[in-house]
Amino acid sequence: MQIDLNADMGESFGPWTMGDDAAMLDIITSANIACGFHAGDPVVMDRTVRLAAQKGVGIGAHPGFDDKRGFGRHRILGLGATEIRTMLIYQLGALQAIARSAGATVRHVKLHGALANMASENVELASQFTEATATADADLIIVAMAKTQLETAARQSGNPVAAEIFADRAYNDDGTLVDRKTKGAVLQDPQVAADRVLKALEDQAVTSVNGVEIPVNPATVCVHGDNPVAVRMADRIRTRLDQAGVQVRPMHSFIGR
Amino acid sequence: MQIDLNADMGESFGPWTMGDDAAMLDIITSANIACGFHAGDPVVMDRTVRLAAQKGVGIGAHPGFDDKRGFGRHRILGLGATEIRTMLIYQLGALQAIARSAGATVRHVKLHGALANMASENVELASQFTEATATADADLIIVAMAKTQLETAARQSGNPVAAEIFADRAYNDDGTLVDRKTKGAVLQDPQVAADRVLKALEDQAVTSVNGVEIPVNPATVCVHGDNPVAVRMADRIRTRLDQAGVQVRPMHSFIGR
Amino acid sequence: MQIDLNADMGESFGPWTMGDDAAMLDIITSANIACGFHAGDPVVMDRTVRLAAQKGVGIGAHPGFDDKRGFGRHRILGLGATEIRTMLIYQLGALQAIARSAGATVRHVKLHGALANMASENVELASQFTEATATADADLIIVAMAKTQLETAARQSGNPVAAEIFADRAYNDDGTLVDRKTKGAVLQDPQVAADRVLKALEDQAVTSVNGVEIPVNPATVCVHGDNPVAVRMADRIRTRLDQAGVQVRPMHSFIGR
Amino acid sequence: MQIDLNADMGESFGPWTMGDDAAMLDIITSANIACGFHAGDPVVMDRTVRLAAQKGVGIGAHPGFDDKRGFGRHRILGLGATEIRTMLIYQLGALQAIARSAGATVRHVKLHGALANMASENVELASQFTEATATADADLIIVAMAKTQLETAARQSGNPVAAEIFADRAYNDDGTLVDRKTKGAVLQDPQVAADRVLKALEDQAVTSVNGVEIPVNPATVCVHGDNPVAVRMADRIRTRLDQAGVQVRPMHSFIGR
Repeated sequence: MQIDLNADMGESFGPWTMGDDAAMLDIITSANIACGFHAGDPVVMDRTVRLAAQKGVGIGAHPGFDDKRGFGRHRILGLGATEIRTMLIYQLGALQAIARSAGATVRHVKLHGALANMASENVELASQFTEATATADADLIIVAMAKTQLETAARQSGNPVAAEIFADRAYNDDGTLVDRKTKGAVLQDPQVAADRVLKALEDQAVTSVNGVEIPVNPATVCVHGDNPVAVRMADRIRTRLDQAGVQVRPMHSFIGR
Repeated sequence: MQIDLNADMGESFGPWTMGDDAAMLDIITSANIACGFHAGDPVVMDRTVRLAAQKGVGIGAHPGFDDKRGFGRHRILGLGATEIRTMLIYQLGALQAIARSAGATVRHVKLHGALANMASENVELASQFTEATATADADLIIVAMAKTQLETAARQSGNPVAAEIFADRAYNDDGTLVDRKTKGAVLQDPQVAADRVLKALEDQAVTSVNGVEIPVNPATVCVHGDNPVAVRMADRIRTRLDQAGVQVRPMHSFIGR
Repeated sequence: MQIDLNADMGESFGPWTMGDDAAMLDIITSANIACGFHAGDPVVMDRTVRLAAQKGVGIGAHPGFDDKRGFGRHRILGLGATEIRTMLIYQLGALQAIARSAGATVRHVKLHGALANMASENVELASQFTEATATADADLIIVAMAKTQLETAARQSGNPVAAEIFADRAYNDDGTLVDRKTKGAVLQDPQVAADRVLKALEDQAVTSVNGVEIPVNPATVCVHGDNPVAVRMADRIRTRLDQAGVQVRPMHSFIGR
Repeated sequence: MQIDLNADMGESFGPWTMGDDAAMLDIITSANIACGFHAGDPVVMDRTVRLAAQKGVGIGAHPGFDDKRGFGRHRILGLGATEIRTMLIYQLGALQAIARSAGATVRHVKLHGALANMASENVELASQFTEATATADADLIIVAMAKTQLETAARQSGNPVAAEIFADRAYNDDGTLVDRKTKGAVLQDPQVAADRVLKALEDQAVTSVNGVEIPVNPATVCVHGDNPVAVRMADRIRTRLDQAGVQVRPMHSFIGR
């Protein structure tokens, strides 16, 4: 059994720091690096890429809406197909060049925040993203939440795909996440979270809040590192997976070419 | 005799238009395309790249300071070497990816505005730029105003170099440009401007305001297109060069690999 | 009979120009001045305020979403009540200070673009806006499209209200505008447009595309000036109103305190 | 003896936090609140204003260059007089409106970062700032580092002036600060720092690194709160001043009208 652990990285900006990237890079195996639109800047991107490369962590682009104040979490409506395509390629290309200049390679791409949520629900947006990615780099692994429109579009793109599950989130029967505002939507216990991951690997399924088995074939698990508690949670999940004999490895080592 | 004509392109932004790029792309042979920091945005970059490619015009990156309101014309002091390097690679990479996705290739890089002026004078900044360029892409032609610190640094970088002269600007004896505020600093007569270019090609020299011959070996001539008068001027220079039998061609067709 | 003509102004930004504000300020009687979020900048605001004051045109704030690339036309979802309130007061206060320093006074406020559209439909957002306005300045005239949630909220705010009609837009039976994409949605004939305004003043009603009379009590008419055709249209509407003996005057001369 | 303690506040931005404003507001008596250009945003400004008002801390505007990534610390050259004036009035007006809507009043203005440094050295820029302030609000206290061009310009403006000293910085013989890079430039010992403040109040002078007495008449002392050590330092200075019987009070309670 093998799995990748991914987390958002490089979310500092100018004088402002977010998260403890150095600590997280010892835990995770793939880093989703902000590309300067919702967070990050060229210096932060460069520093994060080099640190990830040094620790053997896979480097991924994490493009989002151009909205730092809202941290890419506000849905922005009405962007045309060309706007979506070019803003994605712009961000991806910027990170690729920074990675290249550090002797590293961008291996995957994962949408951020509201853009990710919208692409999970909207097949048109999902296709715009996956086609832009395919055009930009046919080898890039597309990270897509399992069972979403985004996963469907990614599978059709021809690019390699990493289906993603969330360690710490409760699932509805249809495979969507329980709304954060609902009690129990976010798991607090690392043991329970790690068990969910193990189970998903063994059974190829996650269990919904109603006990329904949802078939999944996860390649990567999303963990968080934006605060000390989150880092601790990620660390415990990693430890438990290691102890269970799961190979925790960068997604690019077992997906794609 | 052969020469390239370059001009700044893609300087529109969101709802705002600048210049008549379509008209200029029929005149020039290399386009310096803004990369979204001082001007331009992903959509404008994409549109400009495609139009240039379609017209056989060489595509270049035109990075500048991150300051749209000031259009990259204000000098910003105190940026460290990492900031300079990464902001250049970020902009370059973004354009490269957009070009790649359009089946085109970025051939040259030319600094914009205050950043260009500062790098022309300051050997340290010049080296930061040329080294960043060399790191990012060893085949990129570096456009550098002839006789400046920037040309010197570019020659040392190992990358191909295109020395640049200005068709419409008067020169001081040391090869610097006469300050714009001085009377006569900007030539108004396309005939005179074209003659200067022809002379520079034939004699490998430009004549200063005091009659001093300044040796140059120009590969490209900077023309402007930000207003109708400038477009007309560029058009007349091009016509005159054509008529004189000068081969007006993209710099990448006769410089570099 | 009296009416105000309003238009968006001060939509240039840094090196980019939009519209012919000087020409429009000879036609209209109230100017909606962009506040630096979707368009405009401090220099443009200052210049526009001074020009308007000089020509006796009423000065208004025209706040929008913080999105220059999208020109405030993309709907941004999920902003909390505090974000809405403070972003409005911020923009309003900035313009008020610039007006004050020019010896002028901000008389009205009108939302821009997607923010205006959303507040016309959404009573909660409409109230957040009108309450923020009332808190900031109880004398400010709130411009609201007639028959919308925004007009309702404005009437409840205690602030003076100017109900607005559009000279050049076709109306649905419920008083909403016919979608721009529908044929005939935008009137091209200034005569027809001016007639609509005259009729609205005389009959206190506009006629929908299906011939339904929609009762309105307009204080101001929105005209456009973002291109030469629009300026000509505005000019002809103004001339026709003048000829018909309608008093075309700043809204603050006949509304509010 | 009475003195004010001022510190920079409201330097968070969107999802990013900076400093411990709540802790600092229990120590200081005047808050310099970022206005959304180099730091801060409307929500942060609103929150900071309300917290300061609630704790009886004087509210001041802290305008800076429009450069969040550089945190307003990079010198930006070549801004014209109108750009300087309007960018200051814009920021000031935005904060004034937010304060007004919270039932509070902006009492002072202090420039931030590179803009402050430039105005301390450059009489022209200093005058542009003080004249803009006087135009905007004749009652605003201008905070100016003692013995600088800025203090001179402020004294000529007609507005009330608060001369400022730094508790934790070594002085050159001419009253300028010893460069941060020089050893001993920044005092580490709160006792020594508090003694410097007490001495300045008693003797109306600070002592330079060479033992020269520099006459000053300080109304306010700048302390820092951008990290836990800085907060502790500020707290100890405050305690020492209280114990020495110095009245530590908002500058607006003893300066101006």
